[in-house]
Amino acid sequence: MAHSLFVNEYGTRPSGTLSVARWLNLAALLPWSLPLPQTAEGRQCEIEDLNSIYTEECSRLEMLAGEYGRAPEISIPPAVLEQYAKYRPTPLRRARGFEKALGYEGKIFFKREDGNPTGSHKPNTAVPQAWYAKEQGLEELITDTGAGQWGCALAWATRACKIRCTVFMTRGSYKNKPYRRYLMEMMGAHVFGSPSETTKSGRRLLAEDPSHEGSLGIGMGEAMEALRSRPNARLALGCMSYYAALHQTVIGLELAQQLVEDGVEPDVVIGCVGGGTNFTGFIAPFVAGPPYWNGQQPRLLAVESASIPVLTRGEYRYEHADAFALTRMVKMYTLGRAFLPERMHAGGLRYHGKSPLLSLLLHHKRVDAAAVTTDDAFNAGKLFYEAEGILAAPESCHAISQVITEVTDCEKRGEKKTILFCLSGTGYLDLAGYADHFKLV
Amino acid sequence: MAHSLFVNEYGTRPSGTLSVARWLNLAALLPWSLPLPQTAEGRQCEIEDLNSIYTEECSRLEMLAGEYGRAPEISIPPAVLEQYAKYRPTPLRRARGFEKALGYEGKIFFKREDGNPTGSHKPNTAVPQAWYAKEQGLEELITDTGAGQWGCALAWATRACKIRCTVFMTRGSYKNKPYRRYLMEMMGAHVFGSPSETTKSGRRLLAEDPSHEGSLGIGMGEAMEALRSRPNARLALGCMSYYAALHQTVIGLELAQQLVEDGVEPDVVIGCVGGGTNFTGFIAPFVAGPPYWNGQQPRLLAVESASIPVLTRGEYRYEHADAFALTRMVKMYTLGRAFLPERMHAGGLRYHGKSPLLSLLLHHKRVDAAAVTTDDAFNAGKLFYEAEGILAAPESCHAISQVITEVTDCEKRGEKKTILFCLSGTGYLDLAGYADHFKLV
Repeated sequence: MAHSLFVNEYGTRPSGTLSVARWLNLAALLPWSLPLPQTAEGRQCEIEDLNSIYTEECSRLEMLAGEYGRAPEISIPPAVLEQYAKYRPTPLRRARGFEKALGYEGKIFFKREDGNPTGSHKPNTAVPQAWYAKEQGLEELITDTGAGQWGCALAWATRACKIRCTVFMTRGSYKNKPYRRYLMEMMGAHVFGSPSETTKSGRRLLAEDPSHEGSLGIGMGEAMEALRSRPNARLALGCMSYYAALHQTVIGLELAQQLVEDGVEPDVVIGCVGGGTNFTGFIAPFVAGPPYWNGQQPRLLAVESASIPVLTRGEYRYEHADAFALTRMVKMYTLGRAFLPERMHAGGLRYHGKSPLLSLLLHHKRVDAAAVTTDDAFNAGKLFYEAEGILAAPESCHAISQVITEVTDCEKRGEKKTILFCLSGTGYLDLAGYADHFKLV
Repeated sequence: MAHSLFVNEYGTRPSGTLSVARWLNLAALLPWSLPLPQTAEGRQCEIEDLNSIYTEECSRLEMLAGEYGRAPEISIPPAVLEQYAKYRPTPLRRARGFEKALGYEGKIFFKREDGNPTGSHKPNTAVPQAWYAKEQGLEELITDTGAGQWGCALAWATRACKIRCTVFMTRGSYKNKPYRRYLMEMMGAHVFGSPSETTKSGRRLLAEDPSHEGSLGIGMGEAMEALRSRPNARLALGCMSYYAALHQTVIGLELAQQLVEDGVEPDVVIGCVGGGTNFTGFIAPFVAGPPYWNGQQPRLLAVESASIPVLTRGEYRYEHADAFALTRMVKMYTLGRAFLPERMHAGGLRYHGKSPLLSLLLHHKRVDAAAVTTDDAFNAGKLFYEAEGILAAPESCHAISQVITEVTDCEKRGEKKTILFCLSGTGYLDLAGYADHFKLV
């Protein structure tokens, strides 16, 4: 080889070598125990209650939540590692263009989950969920999705396992943002705009308001109703469950390794939160501390939509995961299951509660919360696009907006902090939203 | 760190470390001399002829083409390396899911250029072109674009250099596929559907046919006309020029290093061709041979659209680069500058000729050519999406379709070849085309 051509001629890591082989069971590492889910009737869930809803392995993982003192690490099954190896490790990048655009003298890094299969972080949990279903001999997974990131990921993961995939997609997105629906349908998934005509609860809502826009809570309710008549089907959740948060720790563990290799110690770590599983996975090593993260403890900042101010204005209590009180109840920050957000483009953030794990961390002040308006999010996304050429999902734009706030604060105080955020998904499939916001149509 | 968590605990290459510092001047390494461009009047171009059209540095690089025996390597300017470092090196991935879907027992690898800023390989040449313009003190770059990959990349690159960007976008794409137009406009570029009302030639064509769909040749003609009245502007070309092919060798050199590191020796190397610069950059080390590529010589396969069969059915002769005979003439395979392709979704392939460098390589049988129909391309893209969760640009789908053909041939002969292709751009911005093709709307 012509070594003179290469800046870094001794770089030896084969491209695309997977670096993480276990998930991190945060519940076992926290000084507080994570409240277990309760049945719709208010009794503490047993694994049998969950088995009829989730796959057996997801139910087992969900029950780990409350059991303090368990193993801190869960091995990733080889079949799942094989799928992860298709796209992981994902890049950790320095946002030099964005730093320059902001005139910031500190450093900004971001972890790219937007190049993953189907364009977001969601395959990290879709892949194991589909594999569990296959191992259990199930025929179908049913789910809900907002903007469609989760539905697309599950459609991909189930196809590889030859499992049927049914998706209840928030009706506002189904009608106005059809691109992710096309992707799901290309993958062979069955997609319904929710509320839909296929369930009783859906029909009731449509009778009341034929132009009902839906919500994630309603979608989950319809998924639960559909589940009841299909014994070989189970519910798959892309957020809000402990198992999904567990699966997402693959991001954080991989990130910790990259930070050590690159010699980076973040002062502030920022992520957007819909349910909060992506965020908790992203921050997992910092929450766990040594030996998972031996550096300084950064400030951890969860950013929600100001239209759905669960963390900043909700209550911490037991509430149903769905709008119809069909699912289990979980202890979480919530605006109440009947909460209906205004129309918004960041469909993935459109949910009445936040995950029990994130809620616990917030309750004990281990993470901080901030709320960002849709306007500020899109403006931040545009600035990031101009600077880096990367279009972030509207969800991720909330994190980027908060990065700008932190930079402004740093500049006021004359500080040069290292800020890190998670780019959780691509915005190319949300261009209609951008175009609408910036009046380009 | 908890080393037990990591499969590959001694991986040491910092993420995102740029590995290539020079471009490869293929013209200096070929046994045949590359015919220089001629002026519109038929005289061999001097650098002065080009200086009024391109930036001075692009003109200088363009003249390298004909001069046999020059330096085989050109240093990448530090300011350009800095921009490249934002997204390079790009991943080399094994397509295990696609292998499985095809039941193929050989290996398939692909180089991902779809995660680059603005979603394609185009920034590799947009970045240096914008920087040259800035260094020269110019105020504007004018260009044409088909589906918009090139326009988006130039809009990004010029913004960073504070250079105005004007884009003539093939009118069919401008009207029917507005997403990349939105991206260009968000970046601050001035975008016209071509043929447009802003030039004489555009107005003439619209008068003849108000629903004219345009072509890259027409767009380039309008760009040339606009240039004539703006002394502080120059033309920027994303393909067809020698300089753009030179810039794209960053892909091939990086690739060669990754192949050595990963111990991969491809038997067949496949890329789609619009003008052909991405493809020639991709295959550069294999064409150059030792010391740039010391492994076995793979078969090199350029894949064009069957709707625009330049390589498989065109003539090798001098022809104007634009439809109106305003630009220089280059020696290339061409269907004639008046050629108008049928309506198609792979807008980037919609051009009447192929680059002189690719044409020379084909003429001397150093590369082979194949043509793929739009139907086959979309079907291949869908299969790849199902298997890998990655949606390829319709342009790239032509390469994927050819991969399937090669796999089929291998299976017939009982061979297990290693096939490598370039995933030149993301398809998320072409979902309307996919949806239309698969009748999902």
